[in-house]
This record gives sequence, C-alpha cells and structure tokens, in this order.
Amino acid sequence: MQYANRMKFLEDKSLLNAMEQIVETDDMISFSGGFPSSETYPVEEISASFIKTLELDGKSALSYSPSSGFGPLRKIIAERMFQKFGVNYGFDEIMITNGSQQGLGMSAMLFVNKDDIVIFEVPSYLGAVNALRAHEANLVSVETDEDGIKIEELRKTLDKYGKKVKMIYVNPDYQNPTGRSWSVARREAFMELVSKYDIPVLEDAAYSELAFEEELRKPLSFFDQKGQVIYIGTFSKNFCPGLRVAWLCARKEIMEKILVLKNAADLSSSAICQMQMAHYLTDFNLDRHIDKIITLYKHRRDVMLDTIRKTFPEKVKYTVPKGGLFIWVTLPENKDARVLLSRAAERKVAFVPGGAFYPSGAKNNEFRLNFSNMEDEKIIRGISILGELLREYLSE
Amino acid sequence: MQYANRMKFLEDKSLLNAMEQIVETDDMISFSGGFPSSETYPVEEISASFIKTLELDGKSALSYSPSSGFGPLRKIIAERMFQKFGVNYGFDEIMITNGSQQGLGMSAMLFVNKDDIVIFEVPSYLGAVNALRAHEANLVSVETDEDGIKIEELRKTLDKYGKKVKMIYVNPDYQNPTGRSWSVARREAFMELVSKYDIPVLEDAAYSELAFEEELRKPLSFFDQKGQVIYIGTFSKNFCPGLRVAWLCARKEIMEKILVLKNAADLSSSAICQMQMAHYLTDFNLDRHIDKIITLYKHRRDVMLDTIRKTFPEKVKYTVPKGGLFIWVTLPENKDARVLLSRAAERKVAFVPGGAFYPSGAKNNEFRLNFSNMEDEKIIRGISILGELLREYLSE
Repeated sequence: MQYANRMKFLEDKSLLNAMEQIVETDDMISFSGGFPSSETYPVEEISASFIKTLELDGKSALSYSPSSGFGPLRKIIAERMFQKFGVNYGFDEIMITNGSQQGLGMSAMLFVNKDDIVIFEVPSYLGAVNALRAHEANLVSVETDEDGIKIEELRKTLDKYGKKVKMIYVNPDYQNPTGRSWSVARREAFMELVSKYDIPVLEDAAYSELAFEEELRKPLSFFDQKGQVIYIGTFSKNFCPGLRVAWLCARKEIMEKILVLKNAADLSSSAICQMQMAHYLTDFNLDRHIDKIITLYKHRRDVMLDTIRKTFPEKVKYTVPKGGLFIWVTLPENKDARVLLSRAAERKVAFVPGGAFYPSGAKNNEFRLNFSNMEDEKIIRGISILGELLREYLSE
Repeated sequence: MQYANRMKFLEDKSLLNAMEQIVETDDMISFSGGFPSSETYPVEEISASFIKTLELDGKSALSYSPSSGFGPLRKIIAERMFQKFGVNYGFDEIMITNGSQQGLGMSAMLFVNKDDIVIFEVPSYLGAVNALRAHEANLVSVETDEDGIKIEELRKTLDKYGKKVKMIYVNPDYQNPTGRSWSVARREAFMELVSKYDIPVLEDAAYSELAFEEELRKPLSFFDQKGQVIYIGTFSKNFCPGLRVAWLCARKEIMEKILVLKNAADLSSSAICQMQMAHYLTDFNLDRHIDKIITLYKHRRDVMLDTIRKTFPEKVKYTVPKGGLFIWVTLPENKDARVLLSRAAERKVAFVPGGAFYPSGAKNNEFRLNFSNMEDEKIIRGISILGELLREYLSE
C-alpha cells in the first residue's frame, strides 16, 4: 500500500517509544519522561469528583459533550486564566482539547499547508515537532538563550521567509527540554516584534504554573494587542495527564474555525472527564495541590543539581531551571549523548538525548534530565552513575 | 491571518452545530441526533467501575496511557471481536482511539495526500466526510442500493481513477444515514473486487452490534484475505459516547504507522476511561446491556414506522432498517427536505436534511430520522406533525 507523504517526516519515534514503555519498571532509574510524579495525584478527591459527576448528572457525563467542551469547565478556566495570569478570555474563546498535544495539531491544521514554514525555537518539545510534521510543515529553527528566543535571529528569519511563515511555536515557561523561562523583557520584545507581522503565535504554556519562583510569569497572550496568540494550557502537568483535559484559548474568529477541526478530529472530548475536572476545581483546591507538587519538584531539582555539581566533570554545562520538570545538560561539542545513553542503559539509567529536540539538524552533545519523577535516593544514585560514566567518556 | 486551504472544504458545519446544541431542550422533538438513548446508560455499574479503577490503580489511571492504549482493554476487545464476529486480531493490532471519529481521521492521514481520491459510498456519514475533507481528500461517490455499495459502479470508479484512489470508506452495518445493512453476498462481492486492488478499505462498524436480527452480520474484515481492511469499532453506540473509547484494528504494518499518528495527535487516550471500560467489560455484562437497548430501539423503530405508515403521504419512501439508529426518508425528486425542516422547526420538530450526507453534489429530497432517542409519545407526535406538513408540502 501507498502511504501519505507526511509519514516520511515522522520517522523519529522516540516520543512514541517512550509512551509505549510507560508501564513502570522498578529496577530502572528513568530521567526520561515528562510526567508529573504519580504519587502526588489526589486520588481520593478525584474519585469523589467522579462519583459526584455520575450521581448528579450521569446521563450528560456519559453522553457526547459539545465539540467546544463542557461549558462550566470553560468558564472556570476563563476565570482561572484571569486570576492567575491577568489574561482575559471569554468562555467562548476557550475550547477543551485532549491534552495540549491536540491543540498543537489543530493549530497546525488551521494555519499550515504542506511545505509552509513554521518557526520553532530550538531546542523544542518533540511532541510539537511531531504535531507540526504530521501536517507537513517546514520547520525553521531560531535559537534561544537564557532569556528566551533570540529576537534578532527571529527578526532575520521572519524577514527572510516573509509570507511563507505561517506560524511561530514557542514554549516560554520552564521550557521543555531546557527548563529555561523567558524574561519579561524578552516576552515584551518578542510580542513587539511579532505584532508587526500578521502571523499567529502558538504559545505552549504546559509548565507555566510549575514555578519555583515567587511570581508567575505573564504569558505572551498578556502582551498580545492583536489577538494573534493562541494559548495552550493543560491540566496534565499541574494535575494529572490521565484525564486528557487541556484547553486552547484563541480570539473568536480563530476559535470558530478551530472548532470545525476539533469536530472533524474526534467530535468532542470525554464528557465525564471534563465534568469531573469542573467538580474537582469547584470542590477542592487545585492551587494547594500545585503548591505541594512545586515543593516536591523544587526539592528534587535541588537534589539533582547538588548531585550534578558533586559528580559531573567541570566541562559539562547544565541549566538551573526556576520551574518545570527538566534540566538540560550540554557536553563538549565533540561528545555524543547517544553514546552516553547506551552506556547508561547498561547501568539501568535512562534520559533523552538532545537530538530529538531539534526539528532541523540535530545537535547531539546535549541531553534532557527529568527531575520530577524519581525519589531522592534514585536521583542521587542515577546521577552519580551518569557522573561516573561522563568522567570516563570525557577522558576518552 | 491566512488559513490553510483545508478550511475551504469544511464549510458544512451541520455536525458541529448539532454537537454544540447538544444540551437537551425539553420542548423540542428531535430526530436529529445519532446518539444512544441516555436513559439506558448503566450509570451505577459505570460508577462502580470508576471507583474500582481508582481504588486498584489510581496512579496508572491518572497517568498517561500508552499511545496504543491500555493493554488489558485491547486484549478484551480482541477476544470480543473474535467471539462476536469471528475476526482474529492480535491485541497489538488494536489501538484505542477517542471515538471512532479519531480513527477515521488517522486513517486519512496515513493514506491520503491532498487531492488524492477517496471513494465514498453515498449517502454517507457526515463525520467521515469531514474527517477526510480535513485532510483535503477528493471524495468520489459510489451509490448504494438496498444490499450495499453498487459493485459495478465501484468497479468502474476504481478503474477510471486507477492509482489515484487511496482509500475506500464504507459503513456496511445499519448505515448512517440510511439504516441499510449490506447483504452477505454483497460483502463477499465487495471484498472479492477490492482484493484485486492494492487499496485500503476503511470499514466503519459503529452500528454493527445494534442488530434487530437474529445474527450479527460478518464484517468485511472477516472476508479480508490481504489485510487491507482497517476496521473501526466503538463503544459510543452500543454503550456510552461520553467515555470516548473506541478502537481501530489493522494489520501490523499499518498499525505501526498509524500509532505514530495517534502519538502525534494527542499522545494517548484517557487512561482512566480506558481502565474503567476494561473493568466494566470484566465485571458486568455489556451484551445484556446491548440486548436491552436493542429491544428498546427496535420498539421505537416500530413505533416510528407505524406512525410513518399512518401519516406520511404515499409518495414518500422510507427504509425499514434491521438495526442501528436511523430511518432514511425520500421525497419526490422536486421536493426539498430543507423546506420541510424549516416548517417542522416552527412546530418544534427536528431532523437532518439529506444533503449533508453527500460529499459531492447534494441530493436535497431526502432526510434522516433518528428513532433511538425519543419516547413513544414524542415519536408519535413528532412524526404525525411531519406527516401533516408533508401532506401540505407535497400538494403544493
């Protein structure tokens, strides 16, 4: 049989393979995932919300939801977006999606024809790369530094490709994979620049609430004067991914069109999961849950950084994230993280080599460490093993 | 902003609008939906399964599921497919999707480039039309008669377009919108014909278990020697759509590729809904539930047919479905179901005009009636109103 051309662009299966191996194996020390720590899930509260949902309105919970999503949940999200981030979206400017991943794909479908250019900050979330590649976008990279996407490089790229650029994808908060977060000045400069172009900006805010800092950083959509930002939020990182409840915010003209794509994609998201989420948000305290996991993740980040400092060779550089789930490690340029991984795997330690996070042209001397998912003792043991292997590898 | 070309092909919003207006209004008599009857949902049993899921393994239920789906559920579905239909799929040839709608879109993505031809039986499910159009397929119609797709017409169409044909979409069991089911002979003839071509067949089996007949009809995949059928099944019609648990069966080579698309689309389906479904299928009796709803739907079909016979003018033709959810009504050729609908809406009666079910070139003298969702009294009242309006309209 003959397959569609898009399949050629989807040859990187590392994310799929990670998902397929999701069933935990106790003897492995894995820094690979991008998952919240499952022992933090408020299982009893969630169970109570499911029971309540079915008791109060079982028929609706088991029927189709509207394509746009469960109305009361969209209203709660709108209020939350305003309270937390000062961003004002009407409830009809919010659509529920199956994880933020679905919002990425739909945004691609709305704006991108085959071979159109989408600008990506690099390194960048592999799932976003896949979502765009599935619609045959031509991904053009713009580098980031500690404060965010490089503005001059972005300007040059925008001017070079002109009207061929159909979208810009960024992940400004505690980014996957680097853990870096854009400074306020960089956010403002970015929005000032892109406001001169008639190009939608896809703001992936998956980690925005996992802040180890005092204040949440204002999203790009806060600085958006023209309604060109599509904001993608999710309960997968600050709560539980197994519900697949996420959302997409966009101004009305865009929302009307993207709803058509949601309807064509899967008619609607699970009514019961949406209604459960609405009950949970009303009856319990998500912010308290988030405070709890932030404390835990910050602690685990500290344990990991401490062990890195003690055991990694000096030539190895790494980020010090102020939130999120990841530390990004950079080896000397002549070294390859895949070599390290194959040695680490023999010692039952896993991480994700950095090449997968570059849509065009891999750099192979970097890798991503997740710190949210392993207990202290495993972090110390696993990182110490990596330190040992790195000292060997760097001396070769 | 500039939207992708696909948006031009998605101008029919009737399915989206139906989904958005899903919240029930009591004063309307609606024969529009394609929904099971919500009063039949076994809410307590489902509630017990959710509680059990969270009690036994809350962490997994709230974490990401593998992209392919929850293993034990895939095994149960494989067994069920064999017991019910004699079709043998390994559990790794089964993927969980968010409703069958998602399987339609992914099949399109796997095989169809922009402007490639997909053959559709007509009239055909609007959601499938939308799923294919979202990927810019060029839909070519082949007509159906009472026994299924017209084989000679299909042969001619296949030969006319040759290698440009990338997929064939059919819905052989108690089809949406006509309620017709393909005869065994037609199924065999169809598979014999298509086996001569290297073209995938997308078999939408959404209604296959809603049989008012003694025996379930064997699916096309039963007659498939070459592994060219992609079978799409769902718990949305025989159980509850609000869980969004459906599945797609395909032979390994295809499955490996389609998994990449599922991963890119939304990473995975809701773990908790999949695990709940597995517990329900183990602890309770889905077949007894299906027997119950079949009895109800058959009764409602009879009430509707009986009222049609009594009140519709003779020139109006209609199908007598042996299963499923729909009756298909045909007016004389010079009449337009949209005119009837606008008059019916004033009397608070709704149905779906047939034009929406023709991907290329609408016929407007037909319409679809759903019989599963209204109580007897409303069926009698609503159909009588339609009869009255039809007598007026046909005499004009």
